[in-house]
Amino acid sequence: MSMMLEEIREQPEILANLVLHPPGAIARLTRRFGKRRPEIAVIVARGTSDNAALFGRYVFEITLGLPTILAAPSVTTLYKRHAIPKNALVIGISQSGESTDVNASVEAAKEQGAFCLAITNHAGSALAGLADEVLLTEAGIERSVAATKTYTAQMMVLYWIAKALGGPITGSDLRAVVDEVSACLEDTSGAEHLAEHFRELSHTAVLGRGINYCNGLELGLKLMETSYVVACGFSGADFAHGPIAMVQDGFPIFAFCPSGPTFAQTGLLLARLSDAWAHTVVIGPQECVKDVFARHRVPVEYPRPRTPGAPADLFSPIPLIVPGQCFAAELSAAKGLDPDKPRLLSKVTQTL
Amino acid sequence: MSMMLEEIREQPEILANLVLHPPGAIARLTRRFGKRRPEIAVIVARGTSDNAALFGRYVFEITLGLPTILAAPSVTTLYKRHAIPKNALVIGISQSGESTDVNASVEAAKEQGAFCLAITNHAGSALAGLADEVLLTEAGIERSVAATKTYTAQMMVLYWIAKALGGPITGSDLRAVVDEVSACLEDTSGAEHLAEHFRELSHTAVLGRGINYCNGLELGLKLMETSYVVACGFSGADFAHGPIAMVQDGFPIFAFCPSGPTFAQTGLLLARLSDAWAHTVVIGPQECVKDVFARHRVPVEYPRPRTPGAPADLFSPIPLIVPGQCFAAELSAAKGLDPDKPRLLSKVTQTL
Repeated sequence: MSMMLEEIREQPEILANLVLHPPGAIARLTRRFGKRRPEIAVIVARGTSDNAALFGRYVFEITLGLPTILAAPSVTTLYKRHAIPKNALVIGISQSGESTDVNASVEAAKEQGAFCLAITNHAGSALAGLADEVLLTEAGIERSVAATKTYTAQMMVLYWIAKALGGPITGSDLRAVVDEVSACLEDTSGAEHLAEHFRELSHTAVLGRGINYCNGLELGLKLMETSYVVACGFSGADFAHGPIAMVQDGFPIFAFCPSGPTFAQTGLLLARLSDAWAHTVVIGPQECVKDVFARHRVPVEYPRPRTPGAPADLFSPIPLIVPGQCFAAELSAAKGLDPDKPRLLSKVTQTL
Repeated sequence: MSMMLEEIREQPEILANLVLHPPGAIARLTRRFGKRRPEIAVIVARGTSDNAALFGRYVFEITLGLPTILAAPSVTTLYKRHAIPKNALVIGISQSGESTDVNASVEAAKEQGAFCLAITNHAGSALAGLADEVLLTEAGIERSVAATKTYTAQMMVLYWIAKALGGPITGSDLRAVVDEVSACLEDTSGAEHLAEHFRELSHTAVLGRGINYCNGLELGLKLMETSYVVACGFSGADFAHGPIAMVQDGFPIFAFCPSGPTFAQTGLLLARLSDAWAHTVVIGPQECVKDVFARHRVPVEYPRPRTPGAPADLFSPIPLIVPGQCFAAELSAAKGLDPDKPRLLSKVTQTL
């Protein structure tokens, strides 16, 4: 079994531990911000961590109405300008804690007087050393180059931060997320079959909407990294504004489709794609997938529909990425590749 | 000749007119904000206009240090939450002015008391009706579904807004941009030859960095819309964090490569891509393309190198997209498609 699949399977335990034992900083953040929220948040990250950052942005805006900037690190590193508000809550996210440009941006924000958090898997990292508070993902060492368990652990920590800031998130909500992740991993034969079916996959578009936009980008990234598929991730709305023209008979599309506020719009888009004879894979709770399935003229395959009564939209992104991660790992294997060691990549990427 | 190519060719005149006669609102914005800048800006847009918004974000942050949020419209339209700071300068950008979700976000911001600008090509549009100040792109009716002239006109208006807020931008800088656009259009045979060479192009990655990140996304979008190429746009830094694994012998890459702060990092990335035998097309000023060219082991093609002494990085995005637009239009024709009427698209896209 690849390290990637092993690490995917570690997720229920890691997440359960984070629900039971949130980072110690959470209690301090609750005291500091529980009654007087920051006016604005800034999140700095790259790669998979940047997809977690996008998730965080939606969580903060949806649950708290907290405007959230996803920082452009080059403004600091290449253009030497500061464009981070002084009173911002700044959050750097990096698995290794050694991303040069993320660290440079956090350092610059700190010099301006911002209060800075680090979400990282490495307590001794440079990022951890820079921040006012460190929130460890406690995911154990991630050996596969393709990040999986640290992505979902970062997301769980972001829920905790939103809760500390006063967001309507309960321990019960978070436990349900863990249960759902466990359920997704009980039987992953769907991902194997799907990988077999898509063994020749060379290109695709991966669609997410709202709080699952991050998953569109993240599944796209996993398919590029592990299986060398040209996999563009899109928000479903952005896809309708141009890229949809690519779609013709048999064009493969992967779409995240949770119940809740995004369902109607995603359903409309999937109906259009069906009319264009796209070959659509829908990842979502059983009832949503069935509903969408009923409207399609071409077969819809899906890794594993979730159980009825699955967590609502706000809590869907962690469970929904899991079948995607399994599919990417299985597809890589089906293609005869090594998902743990993508060509041209190393575990820590340094960019400026 | 396609309407798209005709409209590409109208750009020098449209841009020259915008330099000579900026929107009337610019003088009022200068009076209002020249001495007391807003603390934060929020830009709301979709599709090509959203790529212009990304450009605006870099212009504001680089020239003014003004933190800029690119709004997530679904937070307003689907999740029914407000996450736009009250004191923000809000800018809605839409060619038609009839994008439902852009308008809903601007309307919600206005209800919260934000000062709102509209950048649109249609004075009588709903967006224009909503805003406190309207800045018309005065590009004439855009008939091709693939937006070109309104993209660069929106960018020119964004320079004017940055200037009104106190940014170090001169009329001479803007006139140089227009001259460069004219120079790019004098001889477009390079784009035709390139299109002939890439007639079978099915997939690619388009890289931009910093202020040209917008062009990576925009050229990607044009290739998807007009030529049905699976064309993912990336920041060069993000590309190094995973997607680079896709690259193998002959993998086609288009890269924007201006001189200035991003050149060294882009050069390093292109050298890595060269080692992996990517087939790289570099779009940049003559001296940059030559420098990069010298490091490549595989042939580098490029639409048309710019003249020496071309505008610096900050003023490079408008001239640099023009050869890209020409290439997309020519590629569409070379593939026997109609760039003006992409399948599944209409000129005004409605999403929520």
